Amino acid sequence: MSMSSEALRDRTQAYFRLLQTTLCSALESADGKAAFIRDDWDHEDSGGGTTRVLENGQVFEKAGVNFSAVTTKLSSRIAERMNIESQSMFATGISLVLHPVSPMIPSVHMNLRYIEPKNGQAWFGGGMDLTPSYLFEDDVRHFHQTLKHACDRYDHHWYPRFKKWCDEYFTIPHRCETRGLGGIFFDDLSGNIELMFSFVQHVGDCFLEAYLPIVQRRKKESWGTVEKEWQLQRRGRYVEFNLIYDRGTLFGLETRGRIESILISLPPSVHWSYDFHPLPGSREQQLQEILQHPQPWA
Amino acid sequence: MSMSSEALRDRTQAYFRLLQTTLCSALESADGKAAFIRDDWDHEDSGGGTTRVLENGQVFEKAGVNFSAVTTKLSSRIAERMNIESQSMFATGISLVLHPVSPMIPSVHMNLRYIEPKNGQAWFGGGMDLTPSYLFEDDVRHFHQTLKHACDRYDHHWYPRFKKWCDEYFTIPHRCETRGLGGIFFDDLSGNIELMFSFVQHVGDCFLEAYLPIVQRRKKESWGTVEKEWQLQRRGRYVEFNLIYDRGTLFGLETRGRIESILISLPPSVHWSYDFHPLPGSREQQLQEILQHPQPWA
Repeated sequence: MSMSSEALRDRTQAYFRLLQTTLCSALESADGKAAFIRDDWDHEDSGGGTTRVLENGQVFEKAGVNFSAVTTKLSSRIAERMNIESQSMFATGISLVLHPVSPMIPSVHMNLRYIEPKNGQAWFGGGMDLTPSYLFEDDVRHFHQTLKHACDRYDHHWYPRFKKWCDEYFTIPHRCETRGLGGIFFDDLSGNIELMFSFVQHVGDCFLEAYLPIVQRRKKESWGTVEKEWQLQRRGRYVEFNLIYDRGTLFGLETRGRIESILISLPPSVHWSYDFHPLPGSREQQLQEILQHPQPWA
Repeated sequence: MSMSSEALRDRTQAYFRLLQTTLCSALESADGKAAFIRDDWDHEDSGGGTTRVLENGQVFEKAGVNFSAVTTKLSSRIAERMNIESQSMFATGISLVLHPVSPMIPSVHMNLRYIEPKNGQAWFGGGMDLTPSYLFEDDVRHFHQTLKHACDRYDHHWYPRFKKWCDEYFTIPHRCETRGLGGIFFDDLSGNIELMFSFVQHVGDCFLEAYLPIVQRRKKESWGTVEKEWQLQRRGRYVEFNLIYDRGTLFGLETRGRIESILISLPPSVHWSYDFHPLPGSREQQLQEILQHPQPWA
């Protein structure tokens, strides 16, 4: 391993660790009631992580923020799928999923990761995306605008490219809809690795700016059992995506990662009713419509 | 297609259709409150099915009984996985999943299927298995004894073989436990196809005898929020198995089956709490223990 690679490993880990602390502290304040617990854990191969969870809060029904830095052996099947030769890789990252109590506040997901599939190779991946149960166009525009500004500082081609990538990645084929209203998603970013690291940090740093104003605005919205039921049904789709299609989840399971940290993304409570459909012309249907037809938001 | 194959197709379909009617009628009586609705549907290739669902009953929170008979084109990927040459296959079957309201009454699943992967080939598959949230040894013994008797009538080697197959099939590797307390599972039964058809009918016919006495006994048991919460958490494992590992579910999704009929197996309400563990020495822990160490029950 070269000096520079070792230094980059250290710096990415240090940044992700720091970001975890910053985010948990800000989210705890935003919640105003519950606190994050902290679990440090070791991977069976080498390395480990810190999982932080807040449950049954005032704003957040479940909030999980994971940090991990692991060197793991890949099965030949996974190595082949990832199109890499090596059987051992280093990966560090932060991953966040928030499931609010109120159906008026969207769920949100962010993941940032640095991977060395083998010595001398390195790439970044990640993104963040918004999953509302009800459509507030201002919120979605604000979220996407914030991400567009972050991307534009680096390359004007990135936001359109990463936005499209996000819509494609978070598609639930069997439902013919996207999981949410998107954001950005990028993977295998290599080339000028210092520039990529700078970009990834910039994305991580703008998470609170992209999401918290939405929480502040929507926590005042009233809702009842109809809205909660719709949210619980929508969360079913979230589970379907994460367990059937999400590469991060399946990768975690296949590499024998820590189960509770991998499945922290699953919503706290979920309903599956047979053939559940929103009423024609309802706000619920409006949301469903738009999940079937991704829009430009910025 | 030979005459005999055509006749067998017709007879298996007729049996599965009749069994659906018998089961729905008996389950409606057992519930005593809610009724099954009925949805007839067509597959986009050829054929279709009838889905019957009862929701929010007195005994059953959700009960689904599917019949289908479909001729469908297989992608080369699936054909390869199933180790068959043909790109077009015929499949008919019945599939049942019951999720009771009471955490004291076990969930149960049955599936019986007849498949012609290509002309001149035919096999049967299926089985049934019990998924309790609380352990009542009498119930599990009764269920397994009933299945053992059914198997023994045909071959004394079948119950031990199909019981083991069931424990192996319904394993959730990432949780190091089985989905439930098993039953029987068999696949690719060919050879004397008339004998197999007779066996499959016998299994189908003994479902009510295997399950309903358990419902009658356990619906009197009292339970509260602690027991319901445990059931909701256990149902999370049910979802994890079905969406990540169940071949039937994944096969249905890949062959563009009717989504609502495939995902009818998902429980009506589910909880995922972070790192949820039963208390040491509790009845909940007793159940979890036994899921990690499959037992002989008959």
